[in-house]
Amino acid sequence: MKLLVHALISAIASALVVLAAPATAAEPLKPVTVARGLVNPWALAFLPDGRMLVTEKPGRLRIVDAQGRVGPALAGMLPVAHVGQCGLLDVALDPKFADNRVVYWTFAEPGERGTNGTAVARGRLEGAAGQERLADVRVIFRQSPKIDSRLHCGSRIAFDRSGHLWVGLGDRSSHKDAAQDLGNHIGKVVRITGDGGVPDGNPFSTRHTAQPQIWSLGHRNIQGMAVHPETGELWASEHGPQGGDEINVVERGRNYGWPLVTYGRNYGSGTVIGEEGPKPGFEMPLKHWVPVSVAPSGLAFVTSDRYPGWKGSLLVGTLRAQTLVRLTLDGRRVTGEQRLLTELGQRIRDVRQGPDGWIYIVTDGAEGQIIRLER
Amino acid sequence: MKLLVHALISAIASALVVLAAPATAAEPLKPVTVARGLVNPWALAFLPDGRMLVTEKPGRLRIVDAQGRVGPALAGMLPVAHVGQCGLLDVALDPKFADNRVVYWTFAEPGERGTNGTAVARGRLEGAAGQERLADVRVIFRQSPKIDSRLHCGSRIAFDRSGHLWVGLGDRSSHKDAAQDLGNHIGKVVRITGDGGVPDGNPFSTRHTAQPQIWSLGHRNIQGMAVHPETGELWASEHGPQGGDEINVVERGRNYGWPLVTYGRNYGSGTVIGEEGPKPGFEMPLKHWVPVSVAPSGLAFVTSDRYPGWKGSLLVGTLRAQTLVRLTLDGRRVTGEQRLLTELGQRIRDVRQGPDGWIYIVTDGAEGQIIRLER
Repeated sequence: MKLLVHALISAIASALVVLAAPATAAEPLKPVTVARGLVNPWALAFLPDGRMLVTEKPGRLRIVDAQGRVGPALAGMLPVAHVGQCGLLDVALDPKFADNRVVYWTFAEPGERGTNGTAVARGRLEGAAGQERLADVRVIFRQSPKIDSRLHCGSRIAFDRSGHLWVGLGDRSSHKDAAQDLGNHIGKVVRITGDGGVPDGNPFSTRHTAQPQIWSLGHRNIQGMAVHPETGELWASEHGPQGGDEINVVERGRNYGWPLVTYGRNYGSGTVIGEEGPKPGFEMPLKHWVPVSVAPSGLAFVTSDRYPGWKGSLLVGTLRAQTLVRLTLDGRRVTGEQRLLTELGQRIRDVRQGPDGWIYIVTDGAEGQIIRLER
Repeated sequence: MKLLVHALISAIASALVVLAAPATAAEPLKPVTVARGLVNPWALAFLPDGRMLVTEKPGRLRIVDAQGRVGPALAGMLPVAHVGQCGLLDVALDPKFADNRVVYWTFAEPGERGTNGTAVARGRLEGAAGQERLADVRVIFRQSPKIDSRLHCGSRIAFDRSGHLWVGLGDRSSHKDAAQDLGNHIGKVVRITGDGGVPDGNPFSTRHTAQPQIWSLGHRNIQGMAVHPETGELWASEHGPQGGDEINVVERGRNYGWPLVTYGRNYGSGTVIGEEGPKPGFEMPLKHWVPVSVAPSGLAFVTSDRYPGWKGSLLVGTLRAQTLVRLTLDGRRVTGEQRLLTELGQRIRDVRQGPDGWIYIVTDGAEGQIIRLER
């Protein structure tokens, strides 16, 4: 009975969202494939010269030129544990890339006895255009502990306005309770310097039982991050279990509830995991999806003028729902949800706005693509 | 029989050292007590204005002024685990202290279930002279794992010429085998940025089974460190077990042998712990003491003109031997050993050369002192 009520309330809520959403009748987008044949591409970063860095989950970082030519795997990459949801994941340029040519990436690093853990590495892009390799590579951060798991490796990285790096980490599925424990990096967002150090202002850096890199806790599996172009806040997407996918503004020292407070339910049985909240001491998401998960991935704020009426929207790639979701916002309030690219029929792993103002998406799969959304 | 031979060889070696040592008949030093009543003072750092920062092992950082007045414990200090050999340990100024007023210290940080671990914290010295407190305090590095031990907490810190921090760590006594395992920080020297990050050039920063902060391994308990004034190399003193105290030049990626290669023997039984070496892949000390331990602590190179004939010597405070050892050097070769302050009858915990060119020592005990060595 309770389940029925839950489903009913969710259905009404969904209907209200649909009512509030902008018209979607005439989809205004023209997807143009820029590059194809990528193996499980995961993330995209634009180089200043218009080329793109793209990660492939099996462990390759490539450069795609403006004509869509896919370059060779860059030498110098560290070995990755490519199992299940884990592998080579996000990539981002140093804010001072033009001066130092430093690139950051996250990956599942192999551990001992079959374990792996999400790590952040950095390296310098060296060599002439078309012949680049990674030099001075080093690991600057490791999620602790490493776990024997193929699931919930996260991860995304984003630089804050002071040049420090936020890293979104997963709960490894088997360790959800650890997401509430400050003594580890499981189910956390951490904030580190470009060398992996502990910057000034981290909330738990003097607490002797806490990992000093922690910025926020109670996350399940963050797979999207974007810095709000006006406020500088960190926005993140997070996978819930069955239902309970979330969009959050991830603030310093806050607890995002997993697994104590969640809209999600156990797969299959549909049984309750935690409370739905609100509950004092826990943050509520700005947006959540129930009862059907969309599996949100990359995030991008639209700042370009190329899409009339879209400026200030938050784009959310989705894997399960195989659409690009556009959320309209009033500050932190989600005022509408539009589902785009519903005919594409592909899992969308990343979404970024290019320096040319166009939106680019990365599709998942053995024949993944980079697609520019023209109109 | 083997023990007898060992003792005989050691005795001959000691005799040779004594023969090679400079004359010690007329001890030229006049110890002048600068400050007294300090509780187990551990380390000294000179402020640019001539005052001194001094740590007390129970967990207090104080400022001693040029007149020897001992100031109150600075507010803002983090809690320390004060057990056995562990507590508040070393202190050092940021190389840019004149600009940023940042101070670093090492301490035994309490953990869960009775554990503790050596950690490095930093804070800014804020407030008018005589009214300072520590602000923006944060932990930037933690020895992993924390262990339930009262022993071998190390530790010393020293800045290399690029502004990165070397931290000498102990094996916690119960975990000596871990000193050969790159997966932890036990019995290691680490090298970190001023925020605790991983600087360029660390030897194991791409090895997935290694802690990326590690600089060198196979150390038992480092309690003295100094940077060579000409070469910029890290020199360190290390406590052996019964016999086997060492002075080493601690180089990038090298293995200093503990517990596989050591001159030391088990207390009481005198039984062998490891090989004596040399052995390929392991570094031999520049100097070791057998069969009687001196328990070396703080180190200082003499660069001052105040002590004729001493320039270029390495001073070694000793706890057990209750003397100040002066080692004369020819490059990395120890050419002589002089034992100073033999009448003092106090354990010497630290030795530093002040900005005034005088040597200062810190004596251990419930009524510890800071003593200036005039002549």
